[in-house]
Amino acid sequence: MSVELDLDGLRAVHAASRELVRETPAMTSRSLSREIGGEIVLKAENLQRTGSFKLRGALAKLRGVDPTACAGVVTGSAGNHAQSLAYAARARGVRCRVYMPEAAAIGKVEAVRAFGGEVVLGGASVDDCVAAARQAAASEGLLFVHPFDDPDVIAGQAGVGLELAAQVAGLRRVVVPVGGGGLASGTAIALKAADPSIEVFGVQASGCAAVAESLARGAPVEVADAQTIADGIAVKRPGELTLPLLGRWLDGMLTVGDEAIVEAMVRLAERTKLVTEGAGAIGLAALLAGAVEPAPAGATAVVLSGGNVDPRLLAAAINRHEITASRRVRITTRVPDRPGGLSDLLAAIAAAGANILEVSHVRDIAELPLSETSVDLVLETRGPEHTAELRDALAAAGYEVGEG
Amino acid sequence: MSVELDLDGLRAVHAASRELVRETPAMTSRSLSREIGGEIVLKAENLQRTGSFKLRGALAKLRGVDPTACAGVVTGSAGNHAQSLAYAARARGVRCRVYMPEAAAIGKVEAVRAFGGEVVLGGASVDDCVAAARQAAASEGLLFVHPFDDPDVIAGQAGVGLELAAQVAGLRRVVVPVGGGGLASGTAIALKAADPSIEVFGVQASGCAAVAESLARGAPVEVADAQTIADGIAVKRPGELTLPLLGRWLDGMLTVGDEAIVEAMVRLAERTKLVTEGAGAIGLAALLAGAVEPAPAGATAVVLSGGNVDPRLLAAAINRHEITASRRVRITTRVPDRPGGLSDLLAAIAAAGANILEVSHVRDIAELPLSETSVDLVLETRGPEHTAELRDALAAAGYEVGEG
Repeated sequence: MSVELDLDGLRAVHAASRELVRETPAMTSRSLSREIGGEIVLKAENLQRTGSFKLRGALAKLRGVDPTACAGVVTGSAGNHAQSLAYAARARGVRCRVYMPEAAAIGKVEAVRAFGGEVVLGGASVDDCVAAARQAAASEGLLFVHPFDDPDVIAGQAGVGLELAAQVAGLRRVVVPVGGGGLASGTAIALKAADPSIEVFGVQASGCAAVAESLARGAPVEVADAQTIADGIAVKRPGELTLPLLGRWLDGMLTVGDEAIVEAMVRLAERTKLVTEGAGAIGLAALLAGAVEPAPAGATAVVLSGGNVDPRLLAAAINRHEITASRRVRITTRVPDRPGGLSDLLAAIAAAGANILEVSHVRDIAELPLSETSVDLVLETRGPEHTAELRDALAAAGYEVGEG
Repeated sequence: MSVELDLDGLRAVHAASRELVRETPAMTSRSLSREIGGEIVLKAENLQRTGSFKLRGALAKLRGVDPTACAGVVTGSAGNHAQSLAYAARARGVRCRVYMPEAAAIGKVEAVRAFGGEVVLGGASVDDCVAAARQAAASEGLLFVHPFDDPDVIAGQAGVGLELAAQVAGLRRVVVPVGGGGLASGTAIALKAADPSIEVFGVQASGCAAVAESLARGAPVEVADAQTIADGIAVKRPGELTLPLLGRWLDGMLTVGDEAIVEAMVRLAERTKLVTEGAGAIGLAALLAGAVEPAPAGATAVVLSGGNVDPRLLAAAINRHEITASRRVRITTRVPDRPGGLSDLLAAIAAAGANILEVSHVRDIAELPLSETSVDLVLETRGPEHTAELRDALAAAGYEVGEG
């Protein structure tokens, strides 16, 4: 039943899913292009239905399934694969059951249910859930759908590569996230089939880089731990099918840390108005951090693989970024405890061109002379340079400035 | 030099800007469609270059300008118009100066500068800045570009309507934000020219609804105050040119409050992975709040006019939403399968002061004794503490309560 992973086969899979799969935009970002120093195109798979590329693979897998003959599909997953399979199954009129870990995010459990999937909560890890799903498949005659290690699924994900090849004139390089490797191998196969000179680089989070380590050692490596904000690609063991494909088709594997991933998530929200999850932002993170260069001529595409992020995590990332970007500065100083003491300080800050976001007046600090009051301030500046000027200006006006 | 606001004129303006203006996606959202009860299409102008539709009008205005003969363009603005004019001017090789209020957001000032615009900070309000810009235009021979009250600018914004008419099959109704009215009048003119039976509704923030009040009274009204999170449409005085156009072409004007706007912003980020500013989310807010119904048949499009939101505001909106959401609790329990079994449970919940949002009665769980039925509930409480009290009260009444 499996498709051939050649251009005609991939195109047929892509065409069959057109009514449900969105051809996601491929957008040039001029500000990111300027910053990174190349022509940067964002393939916005975060705008895909269900919020990630995973729908492509799930639909490809269901393509060969006869709904009247199929008792249902089943998988074990904590995330995007679960939602996408439920969505695809409902669209194709097939029942869907998903085993999810006890600790799965409520939002993800609800999303699967909202798409009509039956959720069975239990097990400590995704591995437990996959085992339970395989068992149910065997005992109840359900079709087990692996999140990545399946030729049909890989053929589905290849649609990202087919679209990129058609959408982006002068495409020379593509940076794609790697978890299990379904997206990266499918995308690479499609791109190389369209034009073998297009380079494809895979990226993993340095906190969980099983594919990168496996390719470096030339043998499958299972990593002990999965410590990354990019939970969508925190896969500890490479696929049996995908690892050789990645070894054959990728031009390189990179890793980047969580700090860079968070920074890329915020940059995408701020500059391009796109919400991404950690895995979705990692390709841009690799470019921003210099782990991979953009193509010297022609376009470099980054696959933003998904947008299913816990909103609280996004909010925390933004707030953290504002502090690191050091437009938001927290300082502490002292003013004479007399009328006008605080007002003079604020005037000095205003004269230096900074906005005051928060002021708190702290009187009861034992170490201070009785004639002085401590003041905590949160200020907004134009950046690190402006912050330094502000500090100098306050020092010149006689204020001792400490970190907040 | 001004274009005619007829279909041919609008199409010529649109065609002339194609190399710089992105044809933004028009995407059906199935989850929002289900929730609102119609076919909801999102026109993602927040993905437009510069982050808002304003680029369309700015480019349309510059279309007739000979860069070798023009000393430069000038405007007064605190927001999207400033960025867009700077971007358009640079693209056309024309100098650009923007007068911005003393208190303008640093991010917006920096964006104008990043696009090569000269920023003159000063004045307490946007009105002061507009006056300064007009004066500079008169004394230095610069071309003043009004943010909305200009036929070329309106013709540019009409591109949103032209694209919608071409992109959305079965388009019956469009909901569009109204500030000065350039976007709404241009969009309405284009849509009505394409198909007069398409209805167009304008939306303003209830805290600054000058156009809504003016149309209701039949005469221009200037509002005293502009109190809304949707700063992009907080225009106190309707345009002389736009007000009659809005009166003629709109099928209705609505207003919605900030609470609904914030909710819509969060919903767009969570469900559709799109970052919007308050003005950009207000159309969806109107639909979610029931201020306007979706078309009973065919598609209803919502123009997401822009995404240039202060990231801290977005983070705050998300956090606030999560708190409201944490008043929503899902629990599962069992009741005796006899008349009155469910009713007794609901009475116990009511006595504990919680609202019942959803009840589902689940009979077919193999593990349950035959004499019991499982019940899933979604409840609204006053928060986590109240939720704990509720659980205790139900336990005391003999119900075993599990997580849903």
